[in-house]
Amino acid sequence: MTAELQDLFKFLSFPSISTDPRHKTDVLDCANWVVEKLNGMGLEAMLHETPGHPIVIAKNQHDASKKTVLIYGHYDVQPADPLNLWDSPPFAPEIREGKIWARGATDNKGQMLAHVLGIEKTLAEKGELPVNLILLFEGEEEIGSPNLAPFLESHKDELKCDIIAISDTGMVAPNTGTLGYGLRGIACAEVKITGPARDLHSGLFGGAVANPATAIAQLVASLHLPDGTVAIEGFYDSVRPLEKWEREMWAKVPGVKDEDFQKVTGAPALFGEPGYNSAERTWARPTAEVNGIGGGYQGEGSKTVLPAEAFVKLSLRLVPDQEPQVILQQLKAHLEKHCPLGVKLEIELGHDGKPYACDPHSEFGKAAQRALKATFSGEPMLIREGGSIPIVQAFREILGTDTLLLGLALSDAQIHSPNESFPVENFEAGIRLNRVLLEELAK
Amino acid sequence: MTAELQDLFKFLSFPSISTDPRHKTDVLDCANWVVEKLNGMGLEAMLHETPGHPIVIAKNQHDASKKTVLIYGHYDVQPADPLNLWDSPPFAPEIREGKIWARGATDNKGQMLAHVLGIEKTLAEKGELPVNLILLFEGEEEIGSPNLAPFLESHKDELKCDIIAISDTGMVAPNTGTLGYGLRGIACAEVKITGPARDLHSGLFGGAVANPATAIAQLVASLHLPDGTVAIEGFYDSVRPLEKWEREMWAKVPGVKDEDFQKVTGAPALFGEPGYNSAERTWARPTAEVNGIGGGYQGEGSKTVLPAEAFVKLSLRLVPDQEPQVILQQLKAHLEKHCPLGVKLEIELGHDGKPYACDPHSEFGKAAQRALKATFSGEPMLIREGGSIPIVQAFREILGTDTLLLGLALSDAQIHSPNESFPVENFEAGIRLNRVLLEELAK
Repeated sequence: MTAELQDLFKFLSFPSISTDPRHKTDVLDCANWVVEKLNGMGLEAMLHETPGHPIVIAKNQHDASKKTVLIYGHYDVQPADPLNLWDSPPFAPEIREGKIWARGATDNKGQMLAHVLGIEKTLAEKGELPVNLILLFEGEEEIGSPNLAPFLESHKDELKCDIIAISDTGMVAPNTGTLGYGLRGIACAEVKITGPARDLHSGLFGGAVANPATAIAQLVASLHLPDGTVAIEGFYDSVRPLEKWEREMWAKVPGVKDEDFQKVTGAPALFGEPGYNSAERTWARPTAEVNGIGGGYQGEGSKTVLPAEAFVKLSLRLVPDQEPQVILQQLKAHLEKHCPLGVKLEIELGHDGKPYACDPHSEFGKAAQRALKATFSGEPMLIREGGSIPIVQAFREILGTDTLLLGLALSDAQIHSPNESFPVENFEAGIRLNRVLLEELAK
Repeated sequence: MTAELQDLFKFLSFPSISTDPRHKTDVLDCANWVVEKLNGMGLEAMLHETPGHPIVIAKNQHDASKKTVLIYGHYDVQPADPLNLWDSPPFAPEIREGKIWARGATDNKGQMLAHVLGIEKTLAEKGELPVNLILLFEGEEEIGSPNLAPFLESHKDELKCDIIAISDTGMVAPNTGTLGYGLRGIACAEVKITGPARDLHSGLFGGAVANPATAIAQLVASLHLPDGTVAIEGFYDSVRPLEKWEREMWAKVPGVKDEDFQKVTGAPALFGEPGYNSAERTWARPTAEVNGIGGGYQGEGSKTVLPAEAFVKLSLRLVPDQEPQVILQQLKAHLEKHCPLGVKLEIELGHDGKPYACDPHSEFGKAAQRALKATFSGEPMLIREGGSIPIVQAFREILGTDTLLLGLALSDAQIHSPNESFPVENFEAGIRLNRVLLEELAK
């Protein structure tokens, strides 16, 4: 195994699950390993405490005549459950069929470490970098980066840069350079419905009181029209229509045809907002999704109970120019208006992040396209992304800097799902990409 | 502590949860304890194996000149979860505030053992019983008695009797004799919706495929009209309208006014089918309840996942003259018709039991009323019950015998819920009731 892969395996072995308090120490251990790695390469790396998980910052020796490039990544990962669906343990990486299998392999440890190892190679060969480098790696991306914006605010001067690069998005097909210029935003909420003071016998009391599980279902059902359109009042008011060049460009993008979505998802059929194809639906149209729903008896067999409460975890994906805080208020008003009779409604608004779009034809955008062209085959594809990286919007608002999204994640990487993987080939390409990217951006 | 309470504490200490395969041995141990107790009293008791949990049969010496009375009970109990809501452990009974606290205290171990101990007292004092007695105690009532009907079929002659008595229903108020003459039936189904082949990232794929958790919510929402009426086509076609004398009698029944239901359930408001009060809604009108719903992320915090599947456990309470098998087919047709696009629907029909009603003014009905009058204060109340005892219908169909429901369960007993209890006073009254009941039925 190469030294690079050995580093990645070590990095992947930390169960750095940011959402789960039981893994707090694992997240910290992982951050410390990153700091050690960066210092060992000749950068000056430091761990910065936050009220949550720490942020790692590293720099080379800066020179006022060079351009300053910030590379962002995150070392935290999503939970790995359901564990029984993994073919190999999520935190014991394995290589099979040319891919590295582990939680975080693609999202984001594999992509983040490729940049680190590209920098390591350049430093080892040349002793210096063509740019002033700032590495910023956080441990809370999977929980909405609650402490990164305050950190940017308080370290604004130190983090001043000309351009930001992130590899935490999709590559449209193997060996195809992909430049992302837009992301969906997100707005989360958890809704609880309570009814009787405790679980009731559904025979003795069923019929006399509202059932919270039925009520939560009715509330969820109210969120959409039968055709899949979101029914929240005002939801689409600020949605920026797709431009003609975008629809034309996206029609050329490999791997994102409807049939590709069907194959990758394994869904019995595609389904979504009328008038758009799958790429358009996921890149440029907003959604309201249930991430989890629960209430009443969850075990084997039957239990004839009328549950005391039920919950639903919602996340809304937003597109330019929807404002998360406006949308959350619209959601709240909708839920209150549609709450069934006989139950109590509790709404807890969760994390949010603004949608993002920049111009892929800017000076730095063109440099990135050249780097992608040099690393991969053919013309780079210009796309948006369905996922959310709220921090990209924060970079723009706080640091005043645009972000280039140089994705290395394939659509079958199963990020956030069991059996996440990352091709060895993408890992190695990521290392090469970093080297030429820094050169092109320096021009 | 009295010897009777000691017996009850021992009986309650078995976690005889019939639905959970992990408790199979506990259920068997409990059955063996019952057999031992009955043999020790001078009855001839035997444990009969079934494909599930065993049935206990006991008899005295029969005499062709006496009437034959069968007393039915069940020694199995509901699951005890959520455990954290119990004030004392569910299988370590305690007496507080004049009540016995344990899973099964009321449903059905307390009531069943009261009959056994009444018989023990009569035998100890008189050496014989005024009737030919058959005790039939099963261990699968809480899972729909799947093996009792076949057992009745194969032991038809041995179980031939003139009347059946059961104490597994409600007493309308403390110290108030209650004769139940009707029960709701039940029809259960578990519905699963599957979508993508695995949990998906809700950012990358949300919008392009149907969300199974949303779909199950839409399906559940389709089961009712906003006013609480069940929306399944044909559902009310065979419902027997309430008779005038029933509504008048029930208006006199203490403890079942709307305000009592509100107090006992602790619901923020009552809610149900228009045109009926709470007693009528629970005793004489059918329902469609969600017993459990689940799908996607169930843990703390958020996980932005589009779940691969979701489920709902449904139970429909039925009233005369609804036929469970007809209703289940109507339910199936409804679910198939209303299944949202883009997902797959799986319906597993579960256990069912017919609704029941008999004439409370028959010869045995009057004998039961006399026994209740002698044991408690005032005129007995004639009621129906919202719960289901499918076996009552089986007794009628297979043995050709009617069943008297002499309930000792108070509405605040929290059966099927945490902190189930049974007043010591009801336990002692049940022992007395058995003695006078056998005398009255013998006349």
